[in-house]
Amino acid sequence: MSGLVMPKADAATMSRRTEIVAALQAIVPGEGVVDITNEMRAFESDALTAYHQLPLVVVLPQTVRQVSQILKYCHDNNVKVVPRGSGTSLSGGALPLEDAVLLVMSRFNRILEIDYPNRVAVVQPGVTNLGITKAVEHEGFYYAPDPSSQIACSIGGNVAENSGGVHCLKYGLTANNVLGLEMVLISGEVVRLGGKHLDSEGYDLLGLMTGSEGLLGVVTEVTVRILQKPATARALMVGFPTSETAGQCVADIIAAGIIPGGMEMMDRPAIHAAEDFVHAGYPLDVEALLIIELDGPAVEVNHLIDMVEKIAGKNGASSCVISQSEEERMTFWAGRKAAFPAVGRISPDYLCMDGTIPRKELPQVLAGMRALSEKYGLRVANVFHAGDGNLHPLILYDANIPDQLRKAEDFGADILRLCVKVGGVLTGEHGVGVEKRDLMPEMFNEIDLNQQIRVKCAFDDKHLLNPGKVFPQLHRCAELGRMHVHRGQVPFPDIPRF
Amino acid sequence: MSGLVMPKADAATMSRRTEIVAALQAIVPGEGVVDITNEMRAFESDALTAYHQLPLVVVLPQTVRQVSQILKYCHDNNVKVVPRGSGTSLSGGALPLEDAVLLVMSRFNRILEIDYPNRVAVVQPGVTNLGITKAVEHEGFYYAPDPSSQIACSIGGNVAENSGGVHCLKYGLTANNVLGLEMVLISGEVVRLGGKHLDSEGYDLLGLMTGSEGLLGVVTEVTVRILQKPATARALMVGFPTSETAGQCVADIIAAGIIPGGMEMMDRPAIHAAEDFVHAGYPLDVEALLIIELDGPAVEVNHLIDMVEKIAGKNGASSCVISQSEEERMTFWAGRKAAFPAVGRISPDYLCMDGTIPRKELPQVLAGMRALSEKYGLRVANVFHAGDGNLHPLILYDANIPDQLRKAEDFGADILRLCVKVGGVLTGEHGVGVEKRDLMPEMFNEIDLNQQIRVKCAFDDKHLLNPGKVFPQLHRCAELGRMHVHRGQVPFPDIPRF
Repeated sequence: MSGLVMPKADAATMSRRTEIVAALQAIVPGEGVVDITNEMRAFESDALTAYHQLPLVVVLPQTVRQVSQILKYCHDNNVKVVPRGSGTSLSGGALPLEDAVLLVMSRFNRILEIDYPNRVAVVQPGVTNLGITKAVEHEGFYYAPDPSSQIACSIGGNVAENSGGVHCLKYGLTANNVLGLEMVLISGEVVRLGGKHLDSEGYDLLGLMTGSEGLLGVVTEVTVRILQKPATARALMVGFPTSETAGQCVADIIAAGIIPGGMEMMDRPAIHAAEDFVHAGYPLDVEALLIIELDGPAVEVNHLIDMVEKIAGKNGASSCVISQSEEERMTFWAGRKAAFPAVGRISPDYLCMDGTIPRKELPQVLAGMRALSEKYGLRVANVFHAGDGNLHPLILYDANIPDQLRKAEDFGADILRLCVKVGGVLTGEHGVGVEKRDLMPEMFNEIDLNQQIRVKCAFDDKHLLNPGKVFPQLHRCAELGRMHVHRGQVPFPDIPRF
Repeated sequence: MSGLVMPKADAATMSRRTEIVAALQAIVPGEGVVDITNEMRAFESDALTAYHQLPLVVVLPQTVRQVSQILKYCHDNNVKVVPRGSGTSLSGGALPLEDAVLLVMSRFNRILEIDYPNRVAVVQPGVTNLGITKAVEHEGFYYAPDPSSQIACSIGGNVAENSGGVHCLKYGLTANNVLGLEMVLISGEVVRLGGKHLDSEGYDLLGLMTGSEGLLGVVTEVTVRILQKPATARALMVGFPTSETAGQCVADIIAAGIIPGGMEMMDRPAIHAAEDFVHAGYPLDVEALLIIELDGPAVEVNHLIDMVEKIAGKNGASSCVISQSEEERMTFWAGRKAAFPAVGRISPDYLCMDGTIPRKELPQVLAGMRALSEKYGLRVANVFHAGDGNLHPLILYDANIPDQLRKAEDFGADILRLCVKVGGVLTGEHGVGVEKRDLMPEMFNEIDLNQQIRVKCAFDDKHLLNPGKVFPQLHRCAELGRMHVHRGQVPFPDIPRF
């Protein structure tokens, strides 16, 4: 990443800045346009904090009509646009560009409708993830996907990144919990996708938008599924002498037909860092710790707790504590939820990676990571959604030691290559953004990438939306677009080579 | 539908038939090309039996390479292609065209890999839905989505239609159970989407392909999730004096946080027809019958059965029988599963509709349907996936009475319009195909349809794949494609009007 090349700023756009600011001010009057450098500093990076960039100008619309007019203006005048929610992206997805308007959706912060009989909530995209749960919890409901940043991250950002969380093993990612979207195309046209019903005819553009990282359109309304809170939730905290046995325990639980509400693993460095920080009572003599939560009616939960305990015993668990109260359950989770800041206390800097692998490859990948750790001379702490096969290795480094950031990035890239090699993917829930952009060819060949870019072109043929993110190369529409020219009468040209 | 206009056959293609047949024979030697009229009759319709059409020629490839060569040949020579699995589509999705090659995937019938630790099976698209379960059931696993045609329908067809079934309420549609695809683009290029892992970076083309009705590419390999069979399954058969109370019972069960393995409703005409046919012991003095199945560990199932029984009682159920044996459970289902042929016994012909509505609108839609039944003078029997809000009204008519088919079709279209009006959609699981093609503008405006067609163009800009299906108008790529011409430097043109 330290070698990241972002698209060169367009000099013509830069020189037209005054004109662009005036046009945006005409669309969003009052305090909706921020063009003073000091005020723009608040927006210069997202949660991938190694990168900073001031935008051309910041605009904060309040109505769908304003979003439509802004996008139409940008489209007609060839101005780039970076959409942004709360700016908590871990992959640089909301990183501004020097020559792009930063379109901040934080003023779209209203809950529009809560429909309990149909179990859905209709909200604006700037509402926070936790804000949805807060709005329905008095009726015993909640919104299931729960990224660690849920207090701050917006539901619009969750849609852009297809965010996950601890409960996604059982309740699905954002994609499984979003039923409808209203979005504005770069042309300014407004499209509605899905609704309160199951499935829909036509292409699954709702699924396509979810996880599209701000490259296809700007979401202005989200309809999400809300779930009734389970009657009971209890957790087990199980220690293992090796990561391999913990991994096998995870596989056996799933193979037994049990889908826990959450099933998280931490390795020794993560356990020690978390225990030092929050004193959750974690065992310090183990190599791996599983936190397994079962939820549902009490009678079911108690039955499943017994089953999981037996499976853990069969896999050589060295300790097993079962929560006896809601307070104890929360304590088990406290360490896990604080693992990132805890690791921040034992190392000046860390890099959080996000790969996903088929579950059974876990021991192999952990062994490979240990070898890489020795090769690079950098420590790694592992915290992950074990049930999903979604790893979050934290690479510890010190930015003040020359070359360590570069080494950490190379280490991280090697971990992701390893994930791909065993049949996994580059990201589980953090997105590609700028961070993993240049690794996309590790995963996709030229045919795959060209087809993805053709889909991008079908939404945004000028590549004005969030350019420089996700795809390793830009400006391919025109070339791939040659096939569209002659009214379908000429043979398909060869796809240009990368 | 009786007024359906299909795209006019291309005279140039028709006159080149000998040349096309020879080219296909060179790609697929032996018995892989069928061009004799009598032999082609086997392929002239799908399960929307009111329509028949002989194809230009039938080709049955056996390898991915052959599929790639066939599509490349068709693309280079502007020949239309209709992909087909087992031909069980209820919406005419696999209906041949006079001037199109019918690409039949039935020889892709091998199970390639069963990976129990990762709980996935990798199969060729011609494997039947039930064939997957058959291949893994000795190990206690099964494939969850179970359309009524599961003994015959192919998994490739399931992907094309995003098929559902009785168990989709709890376990999801095809889209929720497919993890990976290999597909061939119309250019002949081979793309791999997803795999054995959760989620993926890049656009969700896997989701986009699922339910794309053969218009975007030809699937040559499918990776599906397999589930462990639940330890126990029990069913309740509950009768109600009105459809409204039955509908409220469904809503209350869901609101209580219970997700049954299946929750099906039948109305009086369907109950009587089914009971006369299979003698399942259905009560004949009720207006609506619910069959509700709970599955999981015995301790959970018994607890949930109690809860459901109480909820049914509170909603005024007039009868409630709980299965005491596996045999009794199967008897409860026998009537439901035979409902379509049972209705076939009480009416010379019937039309099976497929709309989906928000669950709480059920009473309103049922009342609307009764009014329409009087208006058209035609009976309607209702069988539906109540938990999903997915209705299957069966309109009874006699094709031998002049004008009754047209009346039945108008009645069906009015039912679907009613579904859309209350916030629902035109189809739950049968697809748009040719049947609902001309109703798409009821659901989507011009902006929506144009964006869908732009996506279609990103895969198949000449509209060679399954033309005449899904979209009410064809040949829009060239017009919409004008925006692609000038290398992104001209303003966005107005979208042409429909």
